[in-house]
Amino acid sequence: MDLTDRIDSAVTAALARANRGHPPERLAKALSYATLPGGARIRPTLLLSVAAACGDDRPALSDSAAAALELIHCASLVHDDLPCFDDADTRRGKPSVHRAYSEPLAVLTGDSLILLAFDVVAQAGDDARVVGLVRVLAKRTGMPFGICAGQGWESEPEMDLAEYHRAKTAALFVAATQMGAISAGHDPEAWEDLGALIGEAFQVADDLRDAEQDAESLGKPVQQDALHGRPNAVAELGVDGAFARLNDILAGAIASIPSCPGEAALARMVRAQADRIVPRQLARKRA
Amino acid sequence: MDLTDRIDSAVTAALARANRGHPPERLAKALSYATLPGGARIRPTLLLSVAAACGDDRPALSDSAAAALELIHCASLVHDDLPCFDDADTRRGKPSVHRAYSEPLAVLTGDSLILLAFDVVAQAGDDARVVGLVRVLAKRTGMPFGICAGQGWESEPEMDLAEYHRAKTAALFVAATQMGAISAGHDPEAWEDLGALIGEAFQVADDLRDAEQDAESLGKPVQQDALHGRPNAVAELGVDGAFARLNDILAGAIASIPSCPGEAALARMVRAQADRIVPRQLARKRA
Repeated sequence: MDLTDRIDSAVTAALARANRGHPPERLAKALSYATLPGGARIRPTLLLSVAAACGDDRPALSDSAAAALELIHCASLVHDDLPCFDDADTRRGKPSVHRAYSEPLAVLTGDSLILLAFDVVAQAGDDARVVGLVRVLAKRTGMPFGICAGQGWESEPEMDLAEYHRAKTAALFVAATQMGAISAGHDPEAWEDLGALIGEAFQVADDLRDAEQDAESLGKPVQQDALHGRPNAVAELGVDGAFARLNDILAGAIASIPSCPGEAALARMVRAQADRIVPRQLARKRA
Repeated sequence: MDLTDRIDSAVTAALARANRGHPPERLAKALSYATLPGGARIRPTLLLSVAAACGDDRPALSDSAAAALELIHCASLVHDDLPCFDDADTRRGKPSVHRAYSEPLAVLTGDSLILLAFDVVAQAGDDARVVGLVRVLAKRTGMPFGICAGQGWESEPEMDLAEYHRAKTAALFVAATQMGAISAGHDPEAWEDLGALIGEAFQVADDLRDAEQDAESLGKPVQQDALHGRPNAVAELGVDGAFARLNDILAGAIASIPSCPGEAALARMVRAQADRIVPRQLARKRA
């Protein structure tokens, strides 16, 4: 099974857990709506790629970890889209959850997806690897090091830019590399740099997309950074400078891969993902 | 140390974890504001009482479990108070989090408290008891059996009343009894009934308070059930009928306590909590 199929199966299995018995139907539907069909699934793909590079001796555990990480990512999108944050009407080319289902159900969808993530990981075993996954997932999602902290910086009178980017975007990439390593029984510490650097690259690529693409091909509103006065690499470095920065960061990411059985394959995967996150029409523009 | 001190210490230690490094300050303050000073701390008190009845051989673990459960409860209050749900201006006698800090910070406070709960539990060990705690906490908070599902029922065109009450109120009491048992190495299944019955009693007592008390002594808006058209025991049975139901449920709860070293003390604690959840001025009215 290729990675995309493994991720889709694991996410579908997670959603089935939220549908047992007699759940409130609209909330149950909203959970599916928020997660299927997915986006690029970049974070769980990275997680499974690291697990593979480390031997992936418990694929059911790495599948659960991948599903959990994707659920957390989807939860963050649902809450970020809320009227009190980005007030986004669309996401992945369809109405955002609060537009399709209501604001109360969007709040509950985000909450429920967060909880489903922990439920899914904790069902996958009862040993130290499972606890390690819970630790990383909680740390990189919550306060003070996770995406909640990142979003929280947007409510501060003065922003710590480095903390902001580390928490807002890089955190879930660090979760991806570390959870992949933990699933396969490897030490997560060695894998933090790779996640942090890929996260940084992704942030720069996202800034480029936000600044340069149109809403139709992006599937969500564009120019949100400029609109909300949020800092971004294009404003800081210009388009050319941001492209140069992106290439430097990716080179550093590949150099940071710890020694492991699947090191070469993982380096190829990081390069492939990099090509994927910089949209083709943008790359063509630069050619 | 008495139970209240243990709970306060554990919650304070949890909040300190959210404050490490350089967190966004307003969100960090909002987390403390939402949890300290606490309410009656009924759920963590029940958790520690069950742990004590089961021998409490790992008090650091039961303390962490108690803090986690209280954090989840506080998170649910913050989200329930949001404008799109109860739109409550006050909570525990002070402005609700979204009134004091803003709506974005209230959403993030709820999310961050949920994540802090899992963080705290996962830091308390790396064995099967810890995983058991994560499982129960996720199940009784999320979909389809937890408080998120309960809140979700309020967005359904037709409500399954039994499921609604089981999920909306009883779920965290079941979490309390089961997490207390797990912390002390006992089988959680035997403890579900006690939690479910105490939860049912609490729901009836809450309905009585909502119907009969004034906002000042309750510290939050009253008559919310009538205002939002939510079902409750007073509307169904009248005040006298609701009191009779409450007594029956409590007798059943005490009868359901599994055989364990501290059975008698736990029965006394349940009676004491029952006296506590029916406010004095209400009990006097009925005398």
